[in-house]
Amino acid sequence: MIKTNLGLYTDFYEFSMAYAYFKENKQDVVAYFDMFVRKIPENGGYMIFNGLHQLIENIKNYTFTTKQIDFLRETNVFDEAFLDYLANLTFDIDMWAMPEGTVCFANEPLITIKGSIIQAQLIETMLLASVNYPILVATKAARIAQAANNRAVVEFGARRAHSMEAAIIGSRAALIGGFIGTSNTLAGYIHDIPISGTIAHSYIQMHDNEYDAFLAYCKINPNNAILLVDTYDTLRSGVVNAIKVAYDYLIPNGYRLKAIRLDSGDLAYLSKKARMMLDEAGLHDTKIWASNSLDEHLITDLINQDAKIDAFGIGENFITSKSQPVLSGVYKLVAHHENGNIIPKIKISDNLEKILNPGFKKLVRFYDKDTNIALGDCMFLADEEIPQDHFVLFDPMATWKTKEISNYIAKELLVPIFVKGKCVYQPPSLQETIAYTKAQCQTIWQEVKRLYNPHKYYVDLSVKLYELKQELIKKNQ
Amino acid sequence: MIKTNLGLYTDFYEFSMAYAYFKENKQDVVAYFDMFVRKIPENGGYMIFNGLHQLIENIKNYTFTTKQIDFLRETNVFDEAFLDYLANLTFDIDMWAMPEGTVCFANEPLITIKGSIIQAQLIETMLLASVNYPILVATKAARIAQAANNRAVVEFGARRAHSMEAAIIGSRAALIGGFIGTSNTLAGYIHDIPISGTIAHSYIQMHDNEYDAFLAYCKINPNNAILLVDTYDTLRSGVVNAIKVAYDYLIPNGYRLKAIRLDSGDLAYLSKKARMMLDEAGLHDTKIWASNSLDEHLITDLINQDAKIDAFGIGENFITSKSQPVLSGVYKLVAHHENGNIIPKIKISDNLEKILNPGFKKLVRFYDKDTNIALGDCMFLADEEIPQDHFVLFDPMATWKTKEISNYIAKELLVPIFVKGKCVYQPPSLQETIAYTKAQCQTIWQEVKRLYNPHKYYVDLSVKLYELKQELIKKNQ
Repeated sequence: MIKTNLGLYTDFYEFSMAYAYFKENKQDVVAYFDMFVRKIPENGGYMIFNGLHQLIENIKNYTFTTKQIDFLRETNVFDEAFLDYLANLTFDIDMWAMPEGTVCFANEPLITIKGSIIQAQLIETMLLASVNYPILVATKAARIAQAANNRAVVEFGARRAHSMEAAIIGSRAALIGGFIGTSNTLAGYIHDIPISGTIAHSYIQMHDNEYDAFLAYCKINPNNAILLVDTYDTLRSGVVNAIKVAYDYLIPNGYRLKAIRLDSGDLAYLSKKARMMLDEAGLHDTKIWASNSLDEHLITDLINQDAKIDAFGIGENFITSKSQPVLSGVYKLVAHHENGNIIPKIKISDNLEKILNPGFKKLVRFYDKDTNIALGDCMFLADEEIPQDHFVLFDPMATWKTKEISNYIAKELLVPIFVKGKCVYQPPSLQETIAYTKAQCQTIWQEVKRLYNPHKYYVDLSVKLYELKQELIKKNQ
Repeated sequence: MIKTNLGLYTDFYEFSMAYAYFKENKQDVVAYFDMFVRKIPENGGYMIFNGLHQLIENIKNYTFTTKQIDFLRETNVFDEAFLDYLANLTFDIDMWAMPEGTVCFANEPLITIKGSIIQAQLIETMLLASVNYPILVATKAARIAQAANNRAVVEFGARRAHSMEAAIIGSRAALIGGFIGTSNTLAGYIHDIPISGTIAHSYIQMHDNEYDAFLAYCKINPNNAILLVDTYDTLRSGVVNAIKVAYDYLIPNGYRLKAIRLDSGDLAYLSKKARMMLDEAGLHDTKIWASNSLDEHLITDLINQDAKIDAFGIGENFITSKSQPVLSGVYKLVAHHENGNIIPKIKISDNLEKILNPGFKKLVRFYDKDTNIALGDCMFLADEEIPQDHFVLFDPMATWKTKEISNYIAKELLVPIFVKGKCVYQPPSLQETIAYTKAQCQTIWQEVKRLYNPHKYYVDLSVKLYELKQELIKKNQ
């Protein structure tokens, strides 16, 4: 959403490295980078890939104005030849990525870049910034929608987002993850998302009493009579006045009390009491909305306690992904060309799971032909054939754990987005992405989607890739 | 940073309320709203006010394009007269706020708005979004800089921020809080912030070995020889090769090894060992930089353990304010006009501390004349005289706790920003704000700034305001 050339949205070390490659005459060396996530947030079982649409726009916009080049010149780090190179930079990279809404897992490539080392290196910061937060919030949204278990969820986070841009990204991600709308009118305008909202406490306070406020609002918005009932006392005043206005004005005029909204206090207790009061008054069709620092954890607990809540409004805990506000998405060199060969690269770590998967790869998901359930993912080297009939998955951290599969459909998950700098991908509409995400989530075992202590989905390596990795580890020790 | 008219950056309920006021012919009723923070993040003792510069721009930009009005029309909620009202909306509000960088506390007004109820209500979402995250990260930055205890801190968060806009806001807030620079080149360009950066692991991997990579980089950037030493093995390889390159190339050519950077492993252990190795090699002037998921908590611990770290790079934990990513900033109706009188308003809560402070107020800070230390803040009703010689502060939650002060300077903290819609405030430069913030922090007791279990700073009410509040509480029960 930043309306300026994005070439400077780059950690400065990308420039110093690019400059070093340039001075070393390495600018035409072709390198491969993978973007992947080290760890699924909140020990969850799955993530939702997101942010591709803005990454595409941001790559197209990765250029420099003359003033920005002047700014780089003033750092006194670069020579004129390099500044010229940047000023005339035209990307000819190849990029593969998952379609937005694809269910994804840790340590598998979500994006792969092939390009000259300078180009591929320069875009690191921008690329990560384009997808890290979108993946984080789309995943959070899916978890919240799953916890709500078919109850409606609406996004209320605009005032607490980490910038207006974050709010808009978050509203869009909310829909992808399964929310039904947003309170953020601008997000609705930009992304064609259903918007909703009625009244706040201040509206009640601006009237002589709660009843007058409810009545005034219902006269103006009889079709959208959702009344906030906790300004003074939820059960003794708010629900009582809402019922009164329903009978005094709405029902005689052919309208219904659509809902009441609880925004404080114990939502389990209050919703059960309010439900009884509404039912006793014959308002069985009046829904109960609830909001107030909710997330998937509290929603799960409320539903376990049989709270009578029909819809949830979710603000700060969603938009900041409060319980885990950082996605550990990284962008790592996995190979480069040397004398016409692809040389796979590895980075060693003391922690076996942190050692990256080397080489130019493809990522395959095996779906059961009968049930359409995803059986596991496997990374192959790019030149490997995908076995079509029979395959043995094995856990790369515990190779004796194997799983033989057949009767599957093998699907490559990374699709071409840029080919030699040209965008070859037409992003689907938001509606299509929402439908795709829903279908994707249905391909995943319930056990993998469990919010707490989920079953670990298989993300494995081909034998060839596994052996290459072991060999490189030995060589680099 | 969103380059569109911001009128739609509004929770939809602000529009439905505004419409109701419009239909009730209440559009000219003057209302007062306070923006305040309910709770200081992380149980801290103080906050740094921030975001005013963008709030001013956002208010100026709170208008609607024709297409945006069309979008509102299509919701079928509003009539044409109201849409006309919005299309021709010109703000004539009054606004008071603290200057950016002012040390501030919970439950005191940081911004006060006086304006027609429609205007004052409409801007709520935008106003909160303009300051909530900036206050949060400026406060986080101050805490981190304080923990670093005069060691340099540089901001590295661009790739993990909740949007590019958040990253730019965060880089600026970092400087206000006491950081010395950022890795984010665009933030440097936009806000004239010092930028820094050298190399990543991928640069090392792109060379045949670590020594060659260090040498190549130092030949190109001999004046900025900061070497990342943890690609293979920090102590056995990285530090050894850095020292070798210092003696093989840098020193013979009149340069120095400026620093090494540790980015993984145990930073206390590694920094002490690396310091010994550098010292034994005679490189006493080579600094040690450290990064890797740091924040004020880990920095405090590292320094307690006598880690030999000269400078810190802080990324995700700062830019997302990970340990507390939500600021509880709210915007509440505190009064409105009726028949020429200001009618103070209150919202009752079960929690005494959550009951808001009613009325149109001014906020005063008492500074000790001799030491310039802030003694306490006190809210007065706008028409009260500020006692200039002698005053008794008392805790509004425990009125028997009093503190008599004299020999003070009383300073109003909220300054006029908009008068009848006209901006009367010239925001200071970032450099001025940095200096002001530093001076502000020096006015606060060390005990209040303690990271853990700080002393509670006095934020009190005048007797008149206290009595008004008690009266309103009784009336509303």
